[in-house]
Amino acid sequence: MSKELESLNEEELLEAWPLLSTEERSEGIRLLDRQQQEDLFLALGGRDQHAFLASLPQTERRSWVRMLPPDDAADLVQEAPPEERQRLLALLDPPARLEVQGLLAYAEDEAGGLMSPRFARVRPDLTVDQAITWLRKQAREKLETIYYVYVIDAEQHLCGVVSFRELFQAPPDKRVRDVMQVDVVTARDDLDQERLSRLFRDWGLLAIPVVDEAGRMKGIVTVDDIVDVVEEEATEDIQKIGGSEALDEPYLTISLPRMLKKRGGWLAVLFLGEMLTATAMAAYEDEIARAVVLALFVPLIISSGGNSGSQASTLVIRAMAVGEVKVRDWWRVVRREFSSGLALGLLLGAIGIVRVLAGEALFHTYGEAAVGVALTVGFSLVGVVLFGTLSGSMLPLLLRRLGLDPASASAPFVATLVDVTGLLIYFSAASLLLRGTLL
Amino acid sequence: MSKELESLNEEELLEAWPLLSTEERSEGIRLLDRQQQEDLFLALGGRDQHAFLASLPQTERRSWVRMLPPDDAADLVQEAPPEERQRLLALLDPPARLEVQGLLAYAEDEAGGLMSPRFARVRPDLTVDQAITWLRKQAREKLETIYYVYVIDAEQHLCGVVSFRELFQAPPDKRVRDVMQVDVVTARDDLDQERLSRLFRDWGLLAIPVVDEAGRMKGIVTVDDIVDVVEEEATEDIQKIGGSEALDEPYLTISLPRMLKKRGGWLAVLFLGEMLTATAMAAYEDEIARAVVLALFVPLIISSGGNSGSQASTLVIRAMAVGEVKVRDWWRVVRREFSSGLALGLLLGAIGIVRVLAGEALFHTYGEAAVGVALTVGFSLVGVVLFGTLSGSMLPLLLRRLGLDPASASAPFVATLVDVTGLLIYFSAASLLLRGTLL
Repeated sequence: MSKELESLNEEELLEAWPLLSTEERSEGIRLLDRQQQEDLFLALGGRDQHAFLASLPQTERRSWVRMLPPDDAADLVQEAPPEERQRLLALLDPPARLEVQGLLAYAEDEAGGLMSPRFARVRPDLTVDQAITWLRKQAREKLETIYYVYVIDAEQHLCGVVSFRELFQAPPDKRVRDVMQVDVVTARDDLDQERLSRLFRDWGLLAIPVVDEAGRMKGIVTVDDIVDVVEEEATEDIQKIGGSEALDEPYLTISLPRMLKKRGGWLAVLFLGEMLTATAMAAYEDEIARAVVLALFVPLIISSGGNSGSQASTLVIRAMAVGEVKVRDWWRVVRREFSSGLALGLLLGAIGIVRVLAGEALFHTYGEAAVGVALTVGFSLVGVVLFGTLSGSMLPLLLRRLGLDPASASAPFVATLVDVTGLLIYFSAASLLLRGTLL
Repeated sequence: MSKELESLNEEELLEAWPLLSTEERSEGIRLLDRQQQEDLFLALGGRDQHAFLASLPQTERRSWVRMLPPDDAADLVQEAPPEERQRLLALLDPPARLEVQGLLAYAEDEAGGLMSPRFARVRPDLTVDQAITWLRKQAREKLETIYYVYVIDAEQHLCGVVSFRELFQAPPDKRVRDVMQVDVVTARDDLDQERLSRLFRDWGLLAIPVVDEAGRMKGIVTVDDIVDVVEEEATEDIQKIGGSEALDEPYLTISLPRMLKKRGGWLAVLFLGEMLTATAMAAYEDEIARAVVLALFVPLIISSGGNSGSQASTLVIRAMAVGEVKVRDWWRVVRREFSSGLALGLLLGAIGIVRVLAGEALFHTYGEAAVGVALTVGFSLVGVVLFGTLSGSMLPLLLRRLGLDPASASAPFVATLVDVTGLLIYFSAASLLLRGTLL
């Protein structure tokens, strides 16, 4: 392995990172020069940075930790076990430690937990030329970005913003207050990261200032951190839609017991729900005994309900996540899904009827009752698909209404919900349509 | 409605945008002042910008189109029907038209289609002070960002990059070539947007320069455009995982026929596949006739396979999408999923056995054969869950290996695949374990 690693530069090593063992990572890093090591370290996430630090002797850790901007340092500290955090904080120089401690007070998934306190700031009464000179001084400290310059009064209130480009274009002797924009998109420090990412997307901004409830500016969130947020939120939604809890760790490195816990819980709950199908089937045991042919179509009927329900629920979950659909739109969703469900049900019902009649014509499988069986299958499919579509689309809205995560309306959850109803629809249709012939 | 709209500022109007009718949008915009109108227009996507333009008289369109940076103008032109594009291009001033035409040559989903040709550039032999003065002039044109300044030689080759902050910190009389970084992360103009977004994520960059095959710099992609890409790609994956094609349009505004086409296709294909369950069930018609009790557990067994398969496939699809799992890791995935599938199968099998035995103890549902039925259900569940987990996890890898999209291994697809096998496992177990008692 060492030979393979030797030929990797820091970009390739970063790409291979999730797949390497701890030893391979340490060795891979040792083979880089210091500049490459630093680039790699800065590009890693907090969890990997912490693992890398842990592999170093205590005496070498300080210079690595001090390389990090305060928001990244806070992420790293959060990844460490509680007893180790003080020791990590002690590695920072006192002003940086204060900054990091301030950030640690926020939850990881709110604006305050994502922001950096190092932003470019000027007073409103400076001239443009003075502001540029002053920024040149500030740039010596490590600022997160100087693309936007924030105009702050003596009480730390945010008065306006001016982009670097605008400052450069402006006449040098004008006052900052006369060139700044006062209509600033801001985020409260406790704003949830999902809504924060929507602000970025809606406005196409590179950075958003974070203010506390008194309107005092606390820091900025930059859009590069939002890419991670969007990706993370999508991962959580996708894992929930697939019917497990969000893993919160990479698939290949999460420990087996933790993975089983995330998957087994939902699987067991769904299994208990699905047991109702056995009860429902038992209620029709006599009908099945009299007409075994009925049992043959049970998997086809219930899976059609599950499939159409999964489609509808994932479409609505995603539309809600990107802000296209809100709970108050439920009636528009019902109308759309009623038409869709009916059309899709008629499509599958027609195919189903053709299938049964073709089976009869070719192999005489169903005897005299063939037409009755065909109609039973066809009508049930319309009902099951319509029901699946409607309940699949309403479930995410209902969950949100109850304050729960719409993404929990997973494909397996919807399928389970629809299975029992599907059986009731199917056997009721059979009772009606096959009375006097098979039943 | 007009009254409600009157009270909206441009931020609220933007948020409500997807839900408004065309008339409401036009009216909403008319009620804003010009500055707010412009902010709103710039924040809209290409499709909505085009719809807004279309609602204006021909004579008013020019000033709106000219407000757009070239990459956004190209998006807007791409949203217009082909016959209208020339007329839109004619609204631009000649240099901008050339830029936009250059961008239109690229596919929308590759680096060239996302880039802006307006980046800050300097020659390597300028001094830092000359460079800053020169940038100040460039800033008067509309640059996408001046956060990174690209160092370009006379043949347009990218020699290095220097951030504005570094330029500000550097001694004014040093040469640009001595302060620039030469180790630049670049993207080829034909790089796929999904891989491009991974570059941004891996390196935490604000912008990446785009070069052609000869290494000449063509433009930059900024991270704010990548937020949209990441969101768009996740939406496509989620919709495919739910078992439909990607809608490519907002859920509430896509026309019903187009939505039915995206959903009906997969639903019909899955339905045809699911018909095999009726064939498989028919093969065991005699066994069902002799022991109707067997039919009762069919939905429970097959849905457990489907649920565990959906879990496994969505976890692997997502891990592949974020670059954690590659095709060559298939054996590691098999090992993980074998252990997981076995453990989860044992869990559900144990619950299943308890369920049957409890049913017998309480209601004497299954008579003498209760133990046999319990074992049949238990063993089948282990087999079905293990098979579901393994095939669900391998299917996305197989699809990628075949050059197809792993996300097509949707929850309903996996469920359908597992249903037929689940029936075979269940009835085979029954034949073995119930021979001599029920069968």
